Amino acid sequence: MNSFVTLRDVGLRDGLQSIPSILPTARKFEWIDAAYAAGVHQMEVGSFVPAHLMPQLADTWDVVVHAKRHEHLQTTVLVPNLKGAERAIESGANALLLPISASAEHSAANVKKTPDQMLETVAAIATARSAAGSKITIDIGISTAFGCTIQGDVPESEVVRIAKAAVAAGADEIGLADTVGYADPAQVKRLISKVQDAVGARCRTGHFHDTRGLALANTVAALDVGIRYFDASLGGIGGCPHAPGASGNVSTEDVVYLLDRMGFETGIDLSQLLALRKKVAEWLSGEQFNGSIWRAGVPKSSSVFA
Amino acid sequence: MNSFVTLRDVGLRDGLQSIPSILPTARKFEWIDAAYAAGVHQMEVGSFVPAHLMPQLADTWDVVVHAKRHEHLQTTVLVPNLKGAERAIESGANALLLPISASAEHSAANVKKTPDQMLETVAAIATARSAAGSKITIDIGISTAFGCTIQGDVPESEVVRIAKAAVAAGADEIGLADTVGYADPAQVKRLISKVQDAVGARCRTGHFHDTRGLALANTVAALDVGIRYFDASLGGIGGCPHAPGASGNVSTEDVVYLLDRMGFETGIDLSQLLALRKKVAEWLSGEQFNGSIWRAGVPKSSSVFA
Repeated sequence: MNSFVTLRDVGLRDGLQSIPSILPTARKFEWIDAAYAAGVHQMEVGSFVPAHLMPQLADTWDVVVHAKRHEHLQTTVLVPNLKGAERAIESGANALLLPISASAEHSAANVKKTPDQMLETVAAIATARSAAGSKITIDIGISTAFGCTIQGDVPESEVVRIAKAAVAAGADEIGLADTVGYADPAQVKRLISKVQDAVGARCRTGHFHDTRGLALANTVAALDVGIRYFDASLGGIGGCPHAPGASGNVSTEDVVYLLDRMGFETGIDLSQLLALRKKVAEWLSGEQFNGSIWRAGVPKSSSVFA
Repeated sequence: MNSFVTLRDVGLRDGLQSIPSILPTARKFEWIDAAYAAGVHQMEVGSFVPAHLMPQLADTWDVVVHAKRHEHLQTTVLVPNLKGAERAIESGANALLLPISASAEHSAANVKKTPDQMLETVAAIATARSAAGSKITIDIGISTAFGCTIQGDVPESEVVRIAKAAVAAGADEIGLADTVGYADPAQVKRLISKVQDAVGARCRTGHFHDTRGLALANTVAALDVGIRYFDASLGGIGGCPHAPGASGNVSTEDVVYLLDRMGFETGIDLSQLLALRKKVAEWLSGEQFNGSIWRAGVPKSSSVFA
């Protein structure tokens, strides 16, 4: 059993896009530098969408350029379409993340496209990558994979179908996102196993929200079926526009604590991460932060932390 | 795999003893009646300790008498010693819960006794039960079983030793309590399995605190190794005097939601439980309540909740 687990911090994109505060670019640089120093070597740093739609992420190009200074940092940017993907390729980001909603109703409401239209975009992006001679990773995040606040249940067969079609269209990696916090551990094991059966190790990423308190339980369920790559957001910021006051993204600190405690390795120093969380909470004073370990602190004299 | 899971709500004891508010006896009756109507058929309703030490629970006798009106309600009372156990036997409670701390330092600080002295108390209680012709269940809660804020690590061998000795002394049921929220899912599976090897099905109860966000993940781990009986506290009240602001007892609503969602049966109606939580939160206005599902609400049109 592989004991190394990779975490991708999505706070700079998924976190910041969900809150009204606009973090100055220099602060984002500081965040990246400190997270990297703490051992976070995968970060989603922004999104190539029109600046007027998402002013919080208007500086994504500069943020990617800064992130590239760190030799071992794998930089992901979210893109909603081919145009965004072309910018991502040009920027030198290591990976682009294209979300495809498994809920037809969520997809229509969110991007005014069907899942099949998004799958056509995957193929177009793969063609653009080849044309540019780029090696950028095409990462597909299947959102609402475990259920949808608009549609309700999402058929597991549809998630499997999208995963298979995305890989056939040129996707390198598949992630399953519990966008609205509906997943439970039994469902996580079942659905991930089905997607693994369909696309093998390309089913890479678990992206869990803590909206109903189950993000860490779902993380353990995913570990149980072999997942070793997770998204999480520093301070648990962002990710829950639909349930005001509820948690959204699981906090990176809590996932690191869980993994440390269970004997997995992450390469991340929890105390440095907690120091960064404190700093970011000061920068974003007034915004909602989530998570548990920052408040309670790590256990006394555990063998893990000794 | 047995799909029925029993929950014991400990809010009336573990919850109320940790907060300064004193809930009037009539409100406790109302709480019991509403929880029973919601399907909660196991409750820890008070503690037989000197009233001046714990004025919140001074009415325990009356509360037990009231609880006994409900035919299928199994009433547990906490007792710290033989004297308390004699009161419990006399009161007609169905079970008495004697905590034994697996951390020698916690035991000394908390009850000024060693674990071995507490084991002698188990034998004395068993003798008193026989003498009284009582059928009261002797339930041992091994506290700090997963670690201790004073001592740090607690040897698993000591937990196993206490469980075995308690059963030999006359205990009917053993629970493992993560009193300070140190447990992780890997440890939960490992330690429970060891205690099951030592005392079989008498290793009954999982009692998890959410201090570091892992109570539900630990619950799933315990389910995985066959545990089907859990403590939880309505509204997540109480249980964390050592980390101000942090969660303590896992909230009953969250555990019911988890189990419903995973396909287990509890006999508990979540919406009725949430209505009671709201009422108790009004009664105890100003006290800290915890948990997630009350805020986010249950998922839309899930097969479980349809």
